[in-house]
Amino acid sequence: MESPRERYDFLVLCSKRLPDKYSLVAMVSPLITPGYTTIVLMQNGLFIHVPFTTQFPQNVIMSAVSMIGVFTEGSNKIKQIGSDILQIGAHYHSGVTDSVSSQWTQTFFDMYSSGGAKSCVLATDMMQTRYAQLLWNAPYNCLCALMGMTVSEVQRSGAREKLVEPMMREIVAIAKADGIVLTEELVHEILYRSPEASRWRPSMMLDREQGRPMEIEVILGDAIRKGKELGVEAKVIESVYELLCLVRWRSDNPVDRGEAHIG
Amino acid sequence: MESPRERYDFLVLCSKRLPDKYSLVAMVSPLITPGYTTIVLMQNGLFIHVPFTTQFPQNVIMSAVSMIGVFTEGSNKIKQIGSDILQIGAHYHSGVTDSVSSQWTQTFFDMYSSGGAKSCVLATDMMQTRYAQLLWNAPYNCLCALMGMTVSEVQRSGAREKLVEPMMREIVAIAKADGIVLTEELVHEILYRSPEASRWRPSMMLDREQGRPMEIEVILGDAIRKGKELGVEAKVIESVYELLCLVRWRSDNPVDRGEAHIG
Repeated sequence: MESPRERYDFLVLCSKRLPDKYSLVAMVSPLITPGYTTIVLMQNGLFIHVPFTTQFPQNVIMSAVSMIGVFTEGSNKIKQIGSDILQIGAHYHSGVTDSVSSQWTQTFFDMYSSGGAKSCVLATDMMQTRYAQLLWNAPYNCLCALMGMTVSEVQRSGAREKLVEPMMREIVAIAKADGIVLTEELVHEILYRSPEASRWRPSMMLDREQGRPMEIEVILGDAIRKGKELGVEAKVIESVYELLCLVRWRSDNPVDRGEAHIG
Repeated sequence: MESPRERYDFLVLCSKRLPDKYSLVAMVSPLITPGYTTIVLMQNGLFIHVPFTTQFPQNVIMSAVSMIGVFTEGSNKIKQIGSDILQIGAHYHSGVTDSVSSQWTQTFFDMYSSGGAKSCVLATDMMQTRYAQLLWNAPYNCLCALMGMTVSEVQRSGAREKLVEPMMREIVAIAKADGIVLTEELVHEILYRSPEASRWRPSMMLDREQGRPMEIEVILGDAIRKGKELGVEAKVIESVYELLCLVRWRSDNPVDRGEAHIG
């Protein structure tokens, strides 16, 4: 029996998602009351709700796509340079009636909005919203991290046309096979949204620079696995994924200086 | 009119091939007597003979795949750590009768062999030999250069299965469409040829480390362009090619440190 003191209405998760390093759902399980606690995932990635709907099939699950323009400086200093813009919505699933999912999502939405976010939008189709976020995240975040280039450099170098757009088209194809429509207008808008002189360095690039693990699996791995399941070929994002896996391998394995050789 | 003193029997080219930086055929044209000088290309790449057969359609052209295990140290010191193994053969073309091409190739072969190479083999189908070389060069040379990893690291990291082999399969498909058979046995042999503990650092990796331009165009670009011409899709080598083009772009453009941003 639990006392009310030990029972949480909401569990809000804002951490990185690194399923290759640890199981988040296992870590936070003691904080969740089955069939009661509403789980709010403010995190990157495509199928981040699945481990929670699987483990807690009677709990309300919602997720949010957040653009908050914030990063850590030093060991414990938070710097906010952008506005807090949030899209949030329920992940409807069979263990919870839709009206209950909606109600708790609205409750959390009202609380969050009242806190003074610049913009908080209720998303009706959260998978559509997450795929749309991935349209930006998969190419820009991953290419910047892989190549050590800012968003602006990726754009100016010709990679927007040669790599970013092909990667976006593969995400569109996977989404389509998964029943989600990402329009041509959306692709065009996201492809050209970032200002040419933005000099932005996305989160995965910062992670690599600071020696932290990167969210490869939830940003590219999940999309590729879904594509394979649905018979969609996505060789460009797969190649970038495999190369980022090499970066991960290198960070787990000491440098081998090697010998010069003509090949 | 030329005096015999100014007329060369052979022009042997052992330089890098960087068609994105300069035209080698334009540079060496003054040394070539049309219809007379035999041109010997000891260089990396796939269609390296084409600019010469185009510009000098009446000259004998041959090329060689060389494994000589040699590199420069400092500004002008040559270090040789491996044996000189050469495969050489004629590029037969319509401007020269085959017997003349064969004869001059044999003459050069005899001269080269008498110099004491460890192994000098006369190749009957030079395009087959060049495609076979590309089977190693395209994946290993390019992945090592892109990721800053030795051949052994590429092998141990899982990239041999995930990236090297898919890249080899694309080369096989392009070769096939171009009328050249690269057998399964050859793919397997080249895939597993390098010892696990080799610690080799291929030439393109050395070029990148030392700030020199890389042979991207003749190693990947030419193969991709031939594939496009023949309707063969090769998304993995194309992705690696585009990423190496970003490395080239970066070396031509100053670093932009950028601003932190969550994406």
